[in-house]
Parts: sequence; structure tokens; C-alpha cells
Amino acid sequence: MRRRKKPGAKEKLLNHELHLCKEPEKYKGNWKEYFLEKRPIHVELGTGRGQFITTLAAQNPEINFIGIEIKEEILLKAVEKAVTQGLRNVTFLWYDVNKLNEVFADGELSRIYINFCDPWPKTRMAKRRLTHRNFIERYKKFLREQGEIHFKTDNEKLFEFSLNEFAACDLQLKHITFDLHHSDMKDNVTTEYEDKFSSMGMKIYRCEAAKRN
Amino acid sequence: MRRRKKPGAKEKLLNHELHLCKEPEKYKGNWKEYFLEKRPIHVELGTGRGQFITTLAAQNPEINFIGIEIKEEILLKAVEKAVTQGLRNVTFLWYDVNKLNEVFADGELSRIYINFCDPWPKTRMAKRRLTHRNFIERYKKFLREQGEIHFKTDNEKLFEFSLNEFAACDLQLKHITFDLHHSDMKDNVTTEYEDKFSSMGMKIYRCEAAKRN
Repeated sequence: MRRRKKPGAKEKLLNHELHLCKEPEKYKGNWKEYFLEKRPIHVELGTGRGQFITTLAAQNPEINFIGIEIKEEILLKAVEKAVTQGLRNVTFLWYDVNKLNEVFADGELSRIYINFCDPWPKTRMAKRRLTHRNFIERYKKFLREQGEIHFKTDNEKLFEFSLNEFAACDLQLKHITFDLHHSDMKDNVTTEYEDKFSSMGMKIYRCEAAKRN
Repeated sequence: MRRRKKPGAKEKLLNHELHLCKEPEKYKGNWKEYFLEKRPIHVELGTGRGQFITTLAAQNPEINFIGIEIKEEILLKAVEKAVTQGLRNVTFLWYDVNKLNEVFADGELSRIYINFCDPWPKTRMAKRRLTHRNFIERYKKFLREQGEIHFKTDNEKLFEFSLNEFAACDLQLKHITFDLHHSDMKDNVTTEYEDKFSSMGMKIYRCEAAKRN
């Protein structure tokens, strides 16, 4: 079922000067200047309604966060969370993750989060998966040395695929877990989607993949 | 239930001069001399009843195989399979895999197979798992550059653990599959245990882990 677009979401979104970066291409290579203080930058691809990134931003004032989302009605919810909480270390891009090359320069990011991305289950669609090696090679360029990708999904086939892709791209895998909510990870921050599917008994898969020196 | 020892298994086993290497320590560093022809050496740890290794040996005459098993009644079945098939590129060691240092030298092996090893599910027993990093570091020494460990299990928790251990030991993971018998791997050779548990609908997990240059 296709979501009916809420009228006015775009206008409301564009009113948020402080938490929406409207011309992100301008900051390519200079994201540290965008924020009030120069700090490591963590990015979430497909930030959705923003529970994950705003919780992280509140917990980690020493990090600057950027959330990227292409659907404006959903992104508006994320931006509103950041506004309500008065968070100054997080901003959002209304942007297509296929075009990250236009907004990030090499070595600019410390961490990339990919949470519950579309599994694109058909093999012929594999290149659209955000953990396809074509994407990962791009992420690697944006990451500084030892920068990390943190990945979560409830889709077992996507997780299997992704582990192989991370390994094929010579990233250092760690903290692989097949059942995050029954693992010994203490400080997991959840997404809205994760809360819903985990409460229905679905297993959540997670791993980290670090860029080598 | 503890298996009752069959009387005479040990004596029968020791009669097999051609397929049982009784003093393997003598060949440490010289396994290529043991076989009729100098060829790459592949080892199976815990070779069980030998269906896997004898099938591989018959299919791959250009490889020399060594199967290692500590239970003599079971090993006897494996040896008898090799004898019946007249295989000359496989031998067996009645040996404890904890003592591999006494029989293999650095860089001597091209591949190590670990199939359905004991999962030792209790955390305090983790060091006994054949994919614990203490074991893997030893295997790495025995392997030549780009040598590989091929691992199969039906135990999800052991597989999760093992992926983390392989990655932590800086091996290059590939061909990770969470459901081998429904994957696109064409040439899978099964063990007796695998046939039984797979036919009961259990998923089989598999991966390869290669030593880097």
C-alpha cells in the first residue's frame, strides 16, 4: 500500500532552518564547519522517523550526527524530534542516498549507520541493497581509517548477503550477532521499526564492519 | 548416552598399515613425503565415519587428504571406506586435535575442514570449541598463505561465535551461508551427520575463512 502524501509536509520540513541542511553539497569536505563545534561525524542512512539518531545525539554530545532520508513526511517526524529535544549536534538531509558522492568527501566520516534498509529480495535488485559492494566501496571512501559501518536488519537473507559483501570489501567484521535482543549488547539504541518487529518476536541481526588502516 | 566401546576396534584399526599413520609426529614438516606423490594437503579435523573425506579424496586425486579422529571405533569406519574404495590419496590419524602442534609444521597445509564439531554451548567451555581463536591461531600457522578453513555446522550459536572468531583472527571470510542446502552451492559434499540432520529439516551453516598474504 502506497502511503498517501500528507499535504504540507514539504513546506513544514523546509521551515526547519536549524535542523535541515537544504544545500548539503555546499558542505562537502567541510561538514565539521557546519556544526557549532568540530567533532567526529556519524551518519545514518535512511533515518526514518529519527528515534535512533536523536537518542544517540542526546546520549553523545561529543559526536555530530547527520540523518539522511528521502521521504519528506517521515523526515519531518525526525526533524521535529530533534527540535523538541533542543538537540544542536544533529542535522538532517532530505536527500537520496544514491547521491552521497555529492555531499561527502573522502575520509570525512567516522561512522555510518544502516538500520533496516530495504532488503530488495529479488536477485536482480541486489544492486539496490544499501549493503551491496558498490555502495560499501563508496562508504569506505567517505570513512576515515578505522571508521565503522554499523548495520542492523531483521531480514536473515539480507544479513547473510551483507556479511559476504562487507567481507568481500575487506572490512574488518566484528560483533556479529544473530539475535541482538537476546545478546549481551547492553547499550543498543532502537529504531521505531525495530521496536515494532522485535516486540512481534522477530530476530534482529547486527554487525559492525571497520575500515582497515 | 555413552557409546559402548566395540571390542577389537583398536586392534582392527591398527592392522590398517596403508591408511592409518601410526607415528604421525615423524612426518611433521614432511607430510608431502608420506604420500605417493607430492600434492597439496587438506586436513579434516574430527573426520568421523569418513564419508566426507573419502568422497572428496575420490573426487580430487590431485589433493592428498588427512583425516583426524580420536574415537577409534568411528575412525575404523572411515579407514574401511578408504580401503574399500582403494583410495591412495587419503590417510588417517588416530589423534587428539588438541595436539596438532606435534604433527604439523608451519605452512604445511593448504586447507583445513571442520565439520559439525562439538558446539560446547556453555560459555565457560568456549575454549574447547574448535573454532575458538586459540585454535584458529594454531590453524593459521599450519596453513600456507591463502590457505583456507572450511567450516560447517548445524548450530546457529556456534556459527555466530565462529564468524566472530574467524574475523577477529584476521581471516578473510567468504561464501558465508545460513542455509547451505537451499543455497546456490552446487558441489557440497556431505557428512553422515549432515545427511541425517538436514533430512530432519535442520539448517546447515557454512563459511570459508582464508589466510591473508
